[in-house]
Amino acid sequence: MDVVNEGAYLLLLHGRRSWLIRVEKGKRMHTHLGIIDVDDAIGREYGSYIESSLGKRIYLLKPITYDYVMKGERRTQIVYPKDMGYIASRLGICSGANVLEIGMGSGALTTFIASIVRPHGHVYSYEVREEFIQIARRNLSRLGLEDHVTIINRDASAGMLEVSNMDAAVIDVGDPWSVLDNVYHAMKGSAPLCAICPTMNQLERLSVAFRDRFVDVEFTELMIRHMEAREGMTRPMFRMIGHTAYLAFGRKVVHGCC
Amino acid sequence: MDVVNEGAYLLLLHGRRSWLIRVEKGKRMHTHLGIIDVDDAIGREYGSYIESSLGKRIYLLKPITYDYVMKGERRTQIVYPKDMGYIASRLGICSGANVLEIGMGSGALTTFIASIVRPHGHVYSYEVREEFIQIARRNLSRLGLEDHVTIINRDASAGMLEVSNMDAAVIDVGDPWSVLDNVYHAMKGSAPLCAICPTMNQLERLSVAFRDRFVDVEFTELMIRHMEAREGMTRPMFRMIGHTAYLAFGRKVVHGCC
Amino acid sequence: MDVVNEGAYLLLLHGRRSWLIRVEKGKRMHTHLGIIDVDDAIGREYGSYIESSLGKRIYLLKPITYDYVMKGERRTQIVYPKDMGYIASRLGICSGANVLEIGMGSGALTTFIASIVRPHGHVYSYEVREEFIQIARRNLSRLGLEDHVTIINRDASAGMLEVSNMDAAVIDVGDPWSVLDNVYHAMKGSAPLCAICPTMNQLERLSVAFRDRFVDVEFTELMIRHMEAREGMTRPMFRMIGHTAYLAFGRKVVHGCC
Amino acid sequence: MDVVNEGAYLLLLHGRRSWLIRVEKGKRMHTHLGIIDVDDAIGREYGSYIESSLGKRIYLLKPITYDYVMKGERRTQIVYPKDMGYIASRLGICSGANVLEIGMGSGALTTFIASIVRPHGHVYSYEVREEFIQIARRNLSRLGLEDHVTIINRDASAGMLEVSNMDAAVIDVGDPWSVLDNVYHAMKGSAPLCAICPTMNQLERLSVAFRDRFVDVEFTELMIRHMEAREGMTRPMFRMIGHTAYLAFGRKVVHGCC
Repeated sequence: MDVVNEGAYLLLLHGRRSWLIRVEKGKRMHTHLGIIDVDDAIGREYGSYIESSLGKRIYLLKPITYDYVMKGERRTQIVYPKDMGYIASRLGICSGANVLEIGMGSGALTTFIASIVRPHGHVYSYEVREEFIQIARRNLSRLGLEDHVTIINRDASAGMLEVSNMDAAVIDVGDPWSVLDNVYHAMKGSAPLCAICPTMNQLERLSVAFRDRFVDVEFTELMIRHMEAREGMTRPMFRMIGHTAYLAFGRKVVHGCC
Repeated sequence: MDVVNEGAYLLLLHGRRSWLIRVEKGKRMHTHLGIIDVDDAIGREYGSYIESSLGKRIYLLKPITYDYVMKGERRTQIVYPKDMGYIASRLGICSGANVLEIGMGSGALTTFIASIVRPHGHVYSYEVREEFIQIARRNLSRLGLEDHVTIINRDASAGMLEVSNMDAAVIDVGDPWSVLDNVYHAMKGSAPLCAICPTMNQLERLSVAFRDRFVDVEFTELMIRHMEAREGMTRPMFRMIGHTAYLAFGRKVVHGCC
Repeated sequence: MDVVNEGAYLLLLHGRRSWLIRVEKGKRMHTHLGIIDVDDAIGREYGSYIESSLGKRIYLLKPITYDYVMKGERRTQIVYPKDMGYIASRLGICSGANVLEIGMGSGALTTFIASIVRPHGHVYSYEVREEFIQIARRNLSRLGLEDHVTIINRDASAGMLEVSNMDAAVIDVGDPWSVLDNVYHAMKGSAPLCAICPTMNQLERLSVAFRDRFVDVEFTELMIRHMEAREGMTRPMFRMIGHTAYLAFGRKVVHGCC
Repeated sequence: MDVVNEGAYLLLLHGRRSWLIRVEKGKRMHTHLGIIDVDDAIGREYGSYIESSLGKRIYLLKPITYDYVMKGERRTQIVYPKDMGYIASRLGICSGANVLEIGMGSGALTTFIASIVRPHGHVYSYEVREEFIQIARRNLSRLGLEDHVTIINRDASAGMLEVSNMDAAVIDVGDPWSVLDNVYHAMKGSAPLCAICPTMNQLERLSVAFRDRFVDVEFTELMIRHMEAREGMTRPMFRMIGHTAYLAFGRKVVHGCC
């Protein structure tokens, strides 16, 4: 039986509210549900619950990658789970793959990809801003993923990249076309690429930059809508996120480029 | 340099049309683009192209999991890449995980999950119909994934399952509530579950079946829309798939159940 | 030249904020933009602006039906403009039509339809709750539409309706099937009907109730998404309304019913 | 009782298939449902049915504006009913309004608007191409709407328009900015405008052209999805139209322009 131990990460859940914490003796959390005494959780089975001082049930969940991603420290807009998942699916990201990432941000997508490619694959991630790297590093270390990610602190548009023969590449910077040449050269022949683009203008400019270098081009948007399912009253939810980003996909071709 | 070898799988691409084939000496394909002589591809770099007898460029792409899934043999509706990706993301499927699948069908989702969890994780997949198992087995073997999947040919609603302590579970059968009890017992405490539901009625019935056994419940639908990005003429595409399936998520809780 | 007169209704606009007011001498409005002195507006052209005490531009707009509907007094959820428009379009509501409405609520849809069918058409509207009728009457009178609407204060499911030969009908109550028989008899042969249904369960139950009495059945949902269009940064808006209601359409057939 | 007369228009319906015809003695239609003998319909009540030679039920429906629009003769892409409805709703188009239209095309939107504004309102419609005008005229005459529409056969971007004081305006041409100046001058102060834009580039360019001349600017897209509602099996339909056009709205302001 899997129980909550001191030092482990733990997701506390009540209804729609949740907290990702580290279990420490004597830790007490003051919340709108009353005080949560973390000591109560130690030694209890995952999936069971403790009660707050106001008698509210607080479920003890073992965090999954999704929780680390959603509850990670961040100073940038992270890639949404719907987009992350489709990127992994469309790029064929799998255990053992070597993946290039340009624009690490807070490391959300890095975390997700590293959790898939390890132990024999690796993520090579470029990030210009030192402060993002600090955050990303802390986020990765919570899942023990540091050894599966190499962080390179420089502008990927300036000069050849340090890596080559990448199985797949993801670009998440505002001007993806500026790094496209370097990314192209770092990829294996026919390897797939994804650029994350908040605006239609970025798509349009990429469609030109892709020409003669990428085929199987797909520009896509995913919309997610949650449902309220209750007996006799099932309907989509009133609120919905309207847009996160477009995703631009292509695969490297090699004619006319060497 | 990665080149096309005899015996390997190869994705041939021209525009929106593609074929996943096995490279065999002397193979000739008759298509609307003219004859494609597969011998021409042998020894060429991935990402380069050959020409059909009508002079059309046929790109040589190294197949990724996505291609095996989309071009796999099938006799059932497969889970769509958008749904697959979100399932992996929302369930935190990662390298090393042990995943239970009820309703293997043609093995599309099985393939995707196995490609992530290997080498140390494993998929346990239940399927009632022997003919689907044959198809799924052939699909898995094309990627060399057979050793990472255990197929159990029986009705998962009848009697305790052969597995336990699963890190995550996916249900893709018409009556997910009928197997919920058995799946529940095979899962770790707090482990996440997804049921794939084409209709709203299935969601509604699951919302009742989830009660007291699953928390963090989310019922979701993903819509995907492709874009036409061209200079000065960027717009969403006229045609779109309106619906594939709803996804029902939850995490196992253990109070009151033992 | 069309100018703002005392006694008229006026829409004041600043950015996304607007107020529908009646122009009265000496009226002063305290807002987050400072004080708006309504006297300043009198005699000014529609489309021009006045300034608030904080120097903010307040545009003077002549209210259109849309404004009366959106800014009307309400104690119920109103039909959204996207749904209203499609109802008018799909039912062929036009000048001169006689339209039956079951469930007047605050009179938003009533207002919209009456603004179209007058002067020779008419709306016959059933509403059980006296307090809604008071609100709806006030809303209608602001556009001078009272004479084009007959309000009947009773339960449309109990006993034959007072009207017949309706060109079209709209049902906006929680249990549309309960009034369907009576509505059916009040409609002309082949006349179109719309029922507004927040949940899929209502659709499902209607699909049964429609059988043998309505053809050309269409169940529809409209989603609306706003765009942020700016040079070089065009994208859909982050927030979006996920769901208002499904719309159920059909046309009356007369075989086997007389 | 309303019956089918010779000379009248009639919508024949079987399942999802329908035909809008003129009732003429002796007319026989050869369809995949067998021969439909139109004589059988004469004198029968609307909403009743006749049978084809293969014994299929053919319902007799009195055409509504929607049918004339959808079944009209066309050589251009027409404005979709979902967009039409929202335009009417958002522009406050009502009985009595004078509406300016630039780009009549086949007259679908013209028909819809004219059916609302008559008898005291009017549509003024500009169209460059003579052949479209012929089609639009035929479409309008089927509903007897010719007297409520004035067609002007010239390029609205060249020289002042013949009309002024319009209550609302709709632009449906590829380069809406080119006519914006002229349309602006033909509108009443604070009157609302809609431009129909298939691409996001058009929206972007309009957002610049609107500046200082239009407020309450809204760029919008409507998506429509049909539902399959059946007992125990309710779900959205598999196929869906992904995109028709964006709609750009604004209201005329008059400062700095006279």
